[in-house]
Amino acid sequence: MKKIQIINGPNLNLLGKREPSVYGNSSFEEYLDTLRKNFPTFEITFFQSNIEGELLNKIHEIGFDYDGIILNAGAYTHTSIALYDAIKAVTTPVVEVHISNVHARESFRHESKISAACKGVILGFGLDSYKLALESFK
Amino acid sequence: MKKIQIINGPNLNLLGKREPSVYGNSSFEEYLDTLRKNFPTFEITFFQSNIEGELLNKIHEIGFDYDGIILNAGAYTHTSIALYDAIKAVTTPVVEVHISNVHARESFRHESKISAACKGVILGFGLDSYKLALESFK
Amino acid sequence: MKKIQIINGPNLNLLGKREPSVYGNSSFEEYLDTLRKNFPTFEITFFQSNIEGELLNKIHEIGFDYDGIILNAGAYTHTSIALYDAIKAVTTPVVEVHISNVHARESFRHESKISAACKGVILGFGLDSYKLALESFK
Amino acid sequence: MKKIQIINGPNLNLLGKREPSVYGNSSFEEYLDTLRKNFPTFEITFFQSNIEGELLNKIHEIGFDYDGIILNAGAYTHTSIALYDAIKAVTTPVVEVHISNVHARESFRHESKISAACKGVILGFGLDSYKLALESFK
Amino acid sequence: MKKIQIINGPNLNLLGKREPSVYGNSSFEEYLDTLRKNFPTFEITFFQSNIEGELLNKIHEIGFDYDGIILNAGAYTHTSIALYDAIKAVTTPVVEVHISNVHARESFRHESKISAACKGVILGFGLDSYKLALESFK
Amino acid sequence: MKKIQIINGPNLNLLGKREPSVYGNSSFEEYLDTLRKNFPTFEITFFQSNIEGELLNKIHEIGFDYDGIILNAGAYTHTSIALYDAIKAVTTPVVEVHISNVHARESFRHESKISAACKGVILGFGLDSYKLALESFK
Amino acid sequence: MKKIQIINGPNLNLLGKREPSVYGNSSFEEYLDTLRKNFPTFEITFFQSNIEGELLNKIHEIGFDYDGIILNAGAYTHTSIALYDAIKAVTTPVVEVHISNVHARESFRHESKISAACKGVILGFGLDSYKLALESFK
Amino acid sequence: MKKIQIINGPNLNLLGKREPSVYGNSSFEEYLDTLRKNFPTFEITFFQSNIEGELLNKIHEIGFDYDGIILNAGAYTHTSIALYDAIKAVTTPVVEVHISNVHARESFRHESKISAACKGVILGFGLDSYKLALESFK
Amino acid sequence: MKKIQIINGPNLNLLGKREPSVYGNSSFEEYLDTLRKNFPTFEITFFQSNIEGELLNKIHEIGFDYDGIILNAGAYTHTSIALYDAIKAVTTPVVEVHISNVHARESFRHESKISAACKGVILGFGLDSYKLALESFK
Amino acid sequence: MKKIQIINGPNLNLLGKREPSVYGNSSFEEYLDTLRKNFPTFEITFFQSNIEGELLNKIHEIGFDYDGIILNAGAYTHTSIALYDAIKAVTTPVVEVHISNVHARESFRHESKISAACKGVILGFGLDSYKLALESFK
Amino acid sequence: MKKIQIINGPNLNLLGKREPSVYGNSSFEEYLDTLRKNFPTFEITFFQSNIEGELLNKIHEIGFDYDGIILNAGAYTHTSIALYDAIKAVTTPVVEVHISNVHARESFRHESKISAACKGVILGFGLDSYKLALESFK
Amino acid sequence: MKKIQIINGPNLNLLGKREPSVYGNSSFEEYLDTLRKNFPTFEITFFQSNIEGELLNKIHEIGFDYDGIILNAGAYTHTSIALYDAIKAVTTPVVEVHISNVHARESFRHESKISAACKGVILGFGLDSYKLALESFK
Repeated sequence: MKKIQIINGPNLNLLGKREPSVYGNSSFEEYLDTLRKNFPTFEITFFQSNIEGELLNKIHEIGFDYDGIILNAGAYTHTSIALYDAIKAVTTPVVEVHISNVHARESFRHESKISAACKGVILGFGLDSYKLALESFK
Repeated sequence: MKKIQIINGPNLNLLGKREPSVYGNSSFEEYLDTLRKNFPTFEITFFQSNIEGELLNKIHEIGFDYDGIILNAGAYTHTSIALYDAIKAVTTPVVEVHISNVHARESFRHESKISAACKGVILGFGLDSYKLALESFK
Repeated sequence: MKKIQIINGPNLNLLGKREPSVYGNSSFEEYLDTLRKNFPTFEITFFQSNIEGELLNKIHEIGFDYDGIILNAGAYTHTSIALYDAIKAVTTPVVEVHISNVHARESFRHESKISAACKGVILGFGLDSYKLALESFK
Repeated sequence: MKKIQIINGPNLNLLGKREPSVYGNSSFEEYLDTLRKNFPTFEITFFQSNIEGELLNKIHEIGFDYDGIILNAGAYTHTSIALYDAIKAVTTPVVEVHISNVHARESFRHESKISAACKGVILGFGLDSYKLALESFK
Repeated sequence: MKKIQIINGPNLNLLGKREPSVYGNSSFEEYLDTLRKNFPTFEITFFQSNIEGELLNKIHEIGFDYDGIILNAGAYTHTSIALYDAIKAVTTPVVEVHISNVHARESFRHESKISAACKGVILGFGLDSYKLALESFK
Repeated sequence: MKKIQIINGPNLNLLGKREPSVYGNSSFEEYLDTLRKNFPTFEITFFQSNIEGELLNKIHEIGFDYDGIILNAGAYTHTSIALYDAIKAVTTPVVEVHISNVHARESFRHESKISAACKGVILGFGLDSYKLALESFK
Repeated sequence: MKKIQIINGPNLNLLGKREPSVYGNSSFEEYLDTLRKNFPTFEITFFQSNIEGELLNKIHEIGFDYDGIILNAGAYTHTSIALYDAIKAVTTPVVEVHISNVHARESFRHESKISAACKGVILGFGLDSYKLALESFK
Repeated sequence: MKKIQIINGPNLNLLGKREPSVYGNSSFEEYLDTLRKNFPTFEITFFQSNIEGELLNKIHEIGFDYDGIILNAGAYTHTSIALYDAIKAVTTPVVEVHISNVHARESFRHESKISAACKGVILGFGLDSYKLALESFK
Repeated sequence: MKKIQIINGPNLNLLGKREPSVYGNSSFEEYLDTLRKNFPTFEITFFQSNIEGELLNKIHEIGFDYDGIILNAGAYTHTSIALYDAIKAVTTPVVEVHISNVHARESFRHESKISAACKGVILGFGLDSYKLALESFK
Repeated sequence: MKKIQIINGPNLNLLGKREPSVYGNSSFEEYLDTLRKNFPTFEITFFQSNIEGELLNKIHEIGFDYDGIILNAGAYTHTSIALYDAIKAVTTPVVEVHISNVHARESFRHESKISAACKGVILGFGLDSYKLALESFK
Repeated sequence: MKKIQIINGPNLNLLGKREPSVYGNSSFEEYLDTLRKNFPTFEITFFQSNIEGELLNKIHEIGFDYDGIILNAGAYTHTSIALYDAIKAVTTPVVEVHISNVHARESFRHESKISAACKGVILGFGLDSYKLALESFK
Repeated sequence: MKKIQIINGPNLNLLGKREPSVYGNSSFEEYLDTLRKNFPTFEITFFQSNIEGELLNKIHEIGFDYDGIILNAGAYTHTSIALYDAIKAVTTPVVEVHISNVHARESFRHESKISAACKGVILGFGLDSYKLALESFK
């Protein structure tokens, strides 16, 4: 079985609670159950933190053994060179995802500091962005 | 059956011939056969042109009837406000795709003039970017 | 009779169909009938293309003989130095028009690459921008 | 009869005196007589001031009762957010006019701080820019 | 009794009339009565002008004797170095206030040319911004 | 009793110790006692952290129940989109405060990434900025 | 006798009062007496206003008859295109002066909007800048 | 015999007609005869189009077989990333030429989007720029 | 004995593991042994964290007692105003070090937000940058 | 007698020969004779070099003994931080002069790297700029 | 016989020694022999200096008598306004050459400060750039 | 014995004389004696020039034979691409040093044009920056 780590960054613990018109109504945990059912050949682990450095710790921890990382870095996407460095440093390929179409929102969300270090980017499909990212690891 | 239009922009007719280290060795037509086999419930049509205005014409022609458009606008991605307007004008949802990770290449490829008008963006997965885009229309 | 050429650029073939809240409900052809009635001393010809180079071809073709050109270059307004050069190159005066108030929309619509080559600019009056442009050639 | 207010900003009192190659030889008052004859169904009032705040006062004074304002804000066009606010605040529609083609002059004349608050813009037709603005209120 | 001067800049004479969703329904004079009642130990004088230079004159006139100035410079906030100089030149401390949260509006309202010369800044509390400014002089 | 949370960001634990000419001599805890005495109808809780993500955690924890948050985000004010998102996500209104007049200091302190998400901003009044913020919740 | 007009702009009425370390202790009127004594062949008139539009009025009034204008536009130097236009419009040559070395102060004082329209610029010599400007008209 | 393709872009069909002070009086066809005589060992073919995509088509068509391409991309020089990509994609070396010294004209002509993909650049020698380009292929 | 604290920031825990061509093969702990032997008169303590706020905590904790801090802030070098503030706030002098020559890498590594607060900067000497920093405290 | 050094920078040896419409017809040496006659109480020495470093050498040589330096740094005005440093380093006051009005010429001549280090600036008066500079040392 | 001066700027004395992959293996003197043989009707003189001012001296010295100057200004191309002025000042036409394609190298090599003053530019052909420049003087 | 060349650029001949608060009181020659005593295994030669081109000459002269160059390029650090090229061209490693912390001074001193070509950078340690640079060559 392939081991896939999903990592969610700042404020994504509020999913289902925060701005539902942008992010939808269901919590990420509920969605995770569906994903696990639909991808039975993947062992999917999940981590969320609001602390930038803990995201780095998690990437370091599993980034040399896992088969894939799906990273939604939230607002740190736009400011964190440290995340870029961490993704570059590990050997596991990382797919960047976003729930909303960040290019259709405020201009400070148009630039990603981490895309250049990732294998690919998927954005704008709601929670299905995670599903498509899993497809990419098939 | 869902009708999906794939539209390729400038220089993508050279796939398999141009910079194979970036774009791969197989032509797009070969790849298209595989896609059609793997997505039997989709009726997939294909159009390529090097002329910006013909890309607009095609989007206008099918953009009120089809179920989805997968658009790889090539270099026009970075310069064409006309494409942005065309995507906004039609009712069919458009998914922007790129074969390579444009964010890991020259800085003039980092900005997309069309992303904000699209439903979503998928980039960096080689030809599989098209496959993931098709998945998104399931 | 004065010969006036109206030239419409990309996506303007969708008038009456595209974003009616911005561009209105009637097609340009319907409006053209009214214009011809209201300006009986003008011989008004009309051309639309989504292809930048065909706009140049048309300007070259009639730009040394006609009495006036009314040009709505659509999105090419903001990107086309080639159009600027074509307008500079011909002897027929060109009036730039826009249906909407481009300055009240996205910031990339605030700059016009062609205004400096035109005789004058009229924008924001809906389809009446064309009528006012015709008035300017009286 | 429709009530139309023409407002001229800084240095426009010098018309006929200042840089005739750019602005022409006749004073604005002479031209105003012609306008009134050609638009007999309009009651046209006129105000000029070199003081930014007096332009605001005039807009406030008549901007809830008149049918139209034709504003040539001169150099304040390029610097005055206060004028933008005043135009936004009143209910009478404002048409921005310029005698010269500002886009063909110094680059600091290419940006207008007030266009986005106006109904429309007409520029480059010499004094006829005012005539066309009046046409727009017919 | 402490002497406090409130100075309002351009377009603020339209309060209660202009864009009520942003600025509220009551005129500033009505609000001033309430302030005077709530701060009986302050002698509050009030001045409004749409003319930048008259704002300077008023600051010069009372800026060496009063105990405090509360300045809402309206749109001049974003363009007037002359106001910055005037505030620097006088000895009375100046508190900058804004009714709306200027940072949540158009980007040209995000920069203040005068903040650096002021004692402090209070913004976003509706008319209560003035009340809080008065509190700061207690 | 209204529940108000004061949140202090990076380096503000050094108050009374760090650059006394800018930030004053007394520690924040001493000042907090005075505040509690002066605002007996408020239940004032206090949290300080140097870790950006812990500031987010605290905002999430109390941001749906409390009546107000007073946030001095220190240097994160100028860099943290994550804080902007957190303030947007919760329902409790947030008032941004700064002890010093940030606009009179280094230019990198002039921009706030969080102001647009806050109800209001108060800055430059020394520790009294907190007092005025409390007044705003009365 | 040559007729020379000295025009002082905003805040210069405070000379001798405002920031003496930058601008010196004596009022401009005192200094004017000395100038008149030292230049007996010049008829020197003087005008000061804090209102931008009144500076324009004065330039218009004497700008076609006088032999020279010495203009210290104060803070309007850095923001007023209207002054640039007025200087361009009149036939009397204008010399721009500044008391302090504006290039050694805040960066927003480094750009002059009016220098390009003036005959020459003299700055940094304290009140003697005016004396040197008078010398230039000898 | 070496096969050399000359490709001219937008508005260059007007040579001899358009702005003769910049581009000279003779048509390109006349000049082509001279070139062919002077370079008898070269088989020189010629193509002109105002349509960006047709320039790409021509480059694709002959760019894997010819010995050299001489490209005057006209205004597309300054805007077309698609041309840059096409030049990169083919194996025939491309020399960029311009008739006028583009660096001595408007600033938007100073940047070339295609130079970095070309073998070399020759500009400013009038029609002789083509002759020198041919020399480079000897 | 002088007390020197070495502080390493994000991703530097991966030394010896991450991009060996840039950062070398040996872990920092191994190198630390050598340093301690070579500088017997220094008591060298070491701290590493991926969490920005914990770097602040450590600087606060020892920044008033130690004789020197050697700080390699990793990617936070380029983004953290909070670190700048912390270095300014403490009394122990801080020397900024980098293993690689950051100026020869990506442009976002050319700017340091913390250099201005440090005593000095040493970069580009591999792990020997730390040795030279220790020399500076002799 | 006061000792004044005039220093001319690059290309100024061509005065009287180069672009006479901008710089006039007479050589600087001829003009120098007149200056010496008109300022009999000054001992005026003169130095010209096209080599930036020799200008520095001259400033170093006399910059601690002379009463004044008049410096026309020509094109080095706009590029030389080394000259700025040299002027700062010496104790003799330096007056920057320019023959033409640099602000009315190409934009790259609008910025001076050395003004902030000089006592004052005089520009635009033709060769009389030197005369006025001498006046300033009286 | 036509007199042509070749001028080489900084570091070009190292040709054949420095970065052979970019600049080739042969010294410029060897190449000069070939040139002289191939252009027997030209009297070709040669000058190299690393000192910017000596390049100016040489241009001044021969720039009114020679038939042509071929200038490879090396790195001064990108920084020297003084060279621009010198080229403008003389009457001999100057052709700018570069051995490498500067547009395909670091971005600071993309801008030339001198192109606008030259007759033409030739770059990217290795040492043959000089040969083509000589052709242009035939 | 290792051969080390120290090269000092513009204005550094004034050490001990110029701005002692920034650069200290002792001349560089005095300091050199100490260095030679402390590094008996190094043969240290020294060169200073205010002329950019002579710095290049020196680098060329010894840059293929010596073991190290310590370069304090003074103000040319911030403007000289020619120095960058020279450092790249030679084989001797170059260490860039600065006496003061350039990042804590004017913003135009924050960028170094030469750092990317150097082996390492040491700045801010007063004259000890040279000592540390020598250490790096041990």
